[in-house]
Amino acid sequence: MAEHYLDNAATTQVLPQAADRARSLMLEEFGNPSSLHTRGFKARQELERARETIAAKWGVGAAEVIFTGGGTEGNNLAILGGALARKRLGDKVVTTAIEHDSVLNAMKELERQGFRVAYAKPELAALEAEIDEKTVLVSAMAVNNETGALLPVRELARIIKRKKAPALLHCDGVQAFGKMAFSPAKWGVDLCTVSAHKIHGPKGVGALYVRKGVHILPRTFGGGQERGLRPGTESLPLIGAFAEAAEHLPKPAQALEAVGALRDRLVAGLREMPGVHIHSPEDGLPYIVNFSAGTVRAETMLHFLAQRGVYVSAGSACGKAKPSHVLEAMGLPKEQIASALRVSFSRFSTREDVEALLAALKEGLGSLQKE
Amino acid sequence: MAEHYLDNAATTQVLPQAADRARSLMLEEFGNPSSLHTRGFKARQELERARETIAAKWGVGAAEVIFTGGGTEGNNLAILGGALARKRLGDKVVTTAIEHDSVLNAMKELERQGFRVAYAKPELAALEAEIDEKTVLVSAMAVNNETGALLPVRELARIIKRKKAPALLHCDGVQAFGKMAFSPAKWGVDLCTVSAHKIHGPKGVGALYVRKGVHILPRTFGGGQERGLRPGTESLPLIGAFAEAAEHLPKPAQALEAVGALRDRLVAGLREMPGVHIHSPEDGLPYIVNFSAGTVRAETMLHFLAQRGVYVSAGSACGKAKPSHVLEAMGLPKEQIASALRVSFSRFSTREDVEALLAALKEGLGSLQKE
Repeated sequence: MAEHYLDNAATTQVLPQAADRARSLMLEEFGNPSSLHTRGFKARQELERARETIAAKWGVGAAEVIFTGGGTEGNNLAILGGALARKRLGDKVVTTAIEHDSVLNAMKELERQGFRVAYAKPELAALEAEIDEKTVLVSAMAVNNETGALLPVRELARIIKRKKAPALLHCDGVQAFGKMAFSPAKWGVDLCTVSAHKIHGPKGVGALYVRKGVHILPRTFGGGQERGLRPGTESLPLIGAFAEAAEHLPKPAQALEAVGALRDRLVAGLREMPGVHIHSPEDGLPYIVNFSAGTVRAETMLHFLAQRGVYVSAGSACGKAKPSHVLEAMGLPKEQIASALRVSFSRFSTREDVEALLAALKEGLGSLQKE
Repeated sequence: MAEHYLDNAATTQVLPQAADRARSLMLEEFGNPSSLHTRGFKARQELERARETIAAKWGVGAAEVIFTGGGTEGNNLAILGGALARKRLGDKVVTTAIEHDSVLNAMKELERQGFRVAYAKPELAALEAEIDEKTVLVSAMAVNNETGALLPVRELARIIKRKKAPALLHCDGVQAFGKMAFSPAKWGVDLCTVSAHKIHGPKGVGALYVRKGVHILPRTFGGGQERGLRPGTESLPLIGAFAEAAEHLPKPAQALEAVGALRDRLVAGLREMPGVHIHSPEDGLPYIVNFSAGTVRAETMLHFLAQRGVYVSAGSACGKAKPSHVLEAMGLPKEQIASALRVSFSRFSTREDVEALLAALKEGLGSLQKE
């Protein structure tokens, strides 16, 4: 059975070149970058080369890139480390109601530590109203992971400046990196999280951009690696593979055109199906399309599709048991939320994938909705 | 030039089978274990199989194994998560003065959070004297990473019980795992840290044993993976490679005999060299031999050896700038500390490695000591 993997916002297949790089860094350049002999020196060189690659792709300085264990760790380090570093300047933190669980649950920890957290609608006016002179951190994702909606991150930087709020601006860039023009430096972002496994790199590695001069507190304590912000022996195999995957990223605009065409075909096909509602905004990033499949429960349809080799997800991969807080924040009716599916493309997705999905969906709606 | 890598306590070369496993988990079973379709299901199966492998090798239950990003993260999670979970039971924490930086610096963070921390000599009486009814955590490593000294972890479990202290017992088992008979369950340990890259697995992954029924607080917040203690998409490639490396571990006694013979030959050779002092205890784990190379500064000798293809370290790989706190705690004279080298074996080390080291050392002492 042909496989049509359309769950690339959950994770992606690792690029062969990246997997090979990881393997050779395990077998050949296996030194500890902190070791003082030749093996350590070579490993250190590979580490710094990888940092420069990521920095160049991201349009930031190499010294501004901290390697992490992934998106969740990066978001936690930025949010907890950022807010706690500025505790004496204020006690308020502003975020949106549609952030990833790793942001929302880090916010809950800040609340336990005495911060007031505002979970605003992901709209500029709502966020602006919350940002004040006591606000020490603002966190908003670049692209929502369930719908592809774009958030007004650049504008938040301007508002913070205009209001003279003592706030660091953090951006969860996990779904944006490599998929759209996206430079934290140009956007006025202070802290930005990315993850390798969403861009055909391996799971278990990511990076946090920490703008030059910005001080945050570490969450982990140890041997001082990554400027003391992320101690522990660096995972050179994964870091090298991350850099390799980043190096192979096409110019975002190039892939956007092809993925945009897939999205358009998918949306056109969905619109022909009765009872299907599209939840993704038209001006969102075309890599993600969220829709409700009539009255069929998402899990039911997901399994039906999976039996036909078509892999999509019900909301995000992470919060599988509960209804999507993103769709709830959008004010969608309960039934639509319960039947919501997420299709997510990669630059390797094809027209055949979309046609297979549409055919299987049509079949599923025909047979499952009768019940 | 032949290479003689004798820095295996810093890191090890990854076993080809483990590297191949990582590569195939990147290219083939690349799903997100949280995804509800077939790809996710298969990834979940691989994850749980790896957990069972590690648990079996370790003599613990699979449900007691939490995968982490490595030793530093594991130690931080155990120490901060353990002490903070018991904050209302007491404010004292006991550890030894010769722990790894990831333990000592996590302790410093506990001090900042209001705990009293006793850094005792790594001797039973000194530790016993500190443990009282306010002690909520005791942390001692199984094997010291600089000297190979064994610590009385089992006895600490008995003391905690006898004194009825409300303390969790944490053991940094990074240098012990796979090298000696070592079961946290049998030892009465509540929390135990291990790391893959010290047993020919990859850097960036480890495990924390959390004894059944023991409650600790997470340090990272997100999607609930690893029972909520280590959220974030699991690094299946590294976890699978870790399990593969563990699976290939010989019975500890088997390797100990061979490594013991290497240690004996090394020590005999060192004893023939004037001005060389051996710092490792005779009853320590033979994988690590620490000694001072006459009056030659460690870095100087290290580079001299490296030029001859012999790789050792000056103290641990992590704290390269400062004099070893471990040797200081042993009360060694300053000059001996400044010239201290660490040789660390793996089960793949050979007699040729030892002879090459001894020959190069002899040459080095002859030419460098004259200056």
